[in-house]
Amino acid sequence: MNRTAEARMPVQVSVDVVLLTLVEQELHTVLLRRAAAPFAGVWALPGGYIHAEEDADAKASAARVLKTKVGIEGAYLEQLATFSGPARDPRGWSVAIAYCALLPMQNLPPQSVDISVLPVSALPQLPFDHRAILEAALERVRSKSLYSSLPVHLCGETFTLPQLQQVYENILGEPLNKVSFRRKMDEMDWLEAVPGARQSGAAHRPAQLYRVKPAFRQELALSPRGL
Amino acid sequence: MNRTAEARMPVQVSVDVVLLTLVEQELHTVLLRRAAAPFAGVWALPGGYIHAEEDADAKASAARVLKTKVGIEGAYLEQLATFSGPARDPRGWSVAIAYCALLPMQNLPPQSVDISVLPVSALPQLPFDHRAILEAALERVRSKSLYSSLPVHLCGETFTLPQLQQVYENILGEPLNKVSFRRKMDEMDWLEAVPGARQSGAAHRPAQLYRVKPAFRQELALSPRGL
Repeated sequence: MNRTAEARMPVQVSVDVVLLTLVEQELHTVLLRRAAAPFAGVWALPGGYIHAEEDADAKASAARVLKTKVGIEGAYLEQLATFSGPARDPRGWSVAIAYCALLPMQNLPPQSVDISVLPVSALPQLPFDHRAILEAALERVRSKSLYSSLPVHLCGETFTLPQLQQVYENILGEPLNKVSFRRKMDEMDWLEAVPGARQSGAAHRPAQLYRVKPAFRQELALSPRGL
Repeated sequence: MNRTAEARMPVQVSVDVVLLTLVEQELHTVLLRRAAAPFAGVWALPGGYIHAEEDADAKASAARVLKTKVGIEGAYLEQLATFSGPARDPRGWSVAIAYCALLPMQNLPPQSVDISVLPVSALPQLPFDHRAILEAALERVRSKSLYSSLPVHLCGETFTLPQLQQVYENILGEPLNKVSFRRKMDEMDWLEAVPGARQSGAAHRPAQLYRVKPAFRQELALSPRGL
């Protein structure tokens, strides 16, 4: 604390975002082709430096990165962990505040030469420590899906209970008991039936459509004893 | 990404540590009296800037802060969350990577004019966003105590099962059922009896002493369905 800011070696601070979505029942992530060195031309997690003159906090930096580099707004964003050290970025000692973002597939932008949506099980080699950041995001999403409403952020605005259960199952990689799943959702008390709305195009009896109660649109509902 | 590091407004990066211990069955935290501005003379969480020339990562920065400013080594350390923004520190846009540290009371240094150990329920007003950081640490420790071996880091090297249960209860603020607590500890399979060691000074039948199995000294044992 005796040294001034000027005398200290600079520390680079960026945000990196693991943006997850479900495509054909499998978790996918969005990669961007890096425009500049280091690793120019390489597919990497969306990220960028903090813009101290405009960002209200690091979460705002992550939202700005998603808006300006991926072209999306309104994704569910939560802080994952902060990665740091002298070796993770060839430009020097750096700090990456990593975020996890969830978005339903239909809200993603079209893929382009610089934006790719790939299954998390079949990603190319990633630069920096982006592989470790991605693994941390997958671990977080899977563990949190065991006791919270997190998966709903991969659903559209309305969904049937079978569709919601399918999303949970796709993340967890295992089937869930229908009766106990519904009981848990009831206990968590975070869903409401959309009045008069039923699934269209169903072969038999159309299922009721649900949506998230307003109180739980910005924060997660928790199930203290798990699913 | 078009601007160089020089052209960007600087971002200060520090670590802050919520160091928790149990004194007389109540969670306490360590505060240091700040030597320099801002908030000189005010009690605050231990913290300091990252020293890029010596720290291997931010966790090493936190360990260095505990060693040099509090005088302790070997505390259990885990990253809590990163706090950021233009207003949390009067010196400008800043990032604080917050850590939670747990240590048994007997390993704490003696209190001094600049080091204080206070019950978390009776802290003075804290500078910066240290109150929010402290609340996040308490929330983390309480929620993680519901499904992991985290509380053991508040115990000494050996302990009886009643002592361990007491530590869990002190953190959770509620009594636990002895039979189910012991069954959960058994299921988690992270404790071993210290051969031939029994609690000294017990009034009646001396209780068996336990310690953490080597595999769980650096990482937590988890109970997937909670206590």
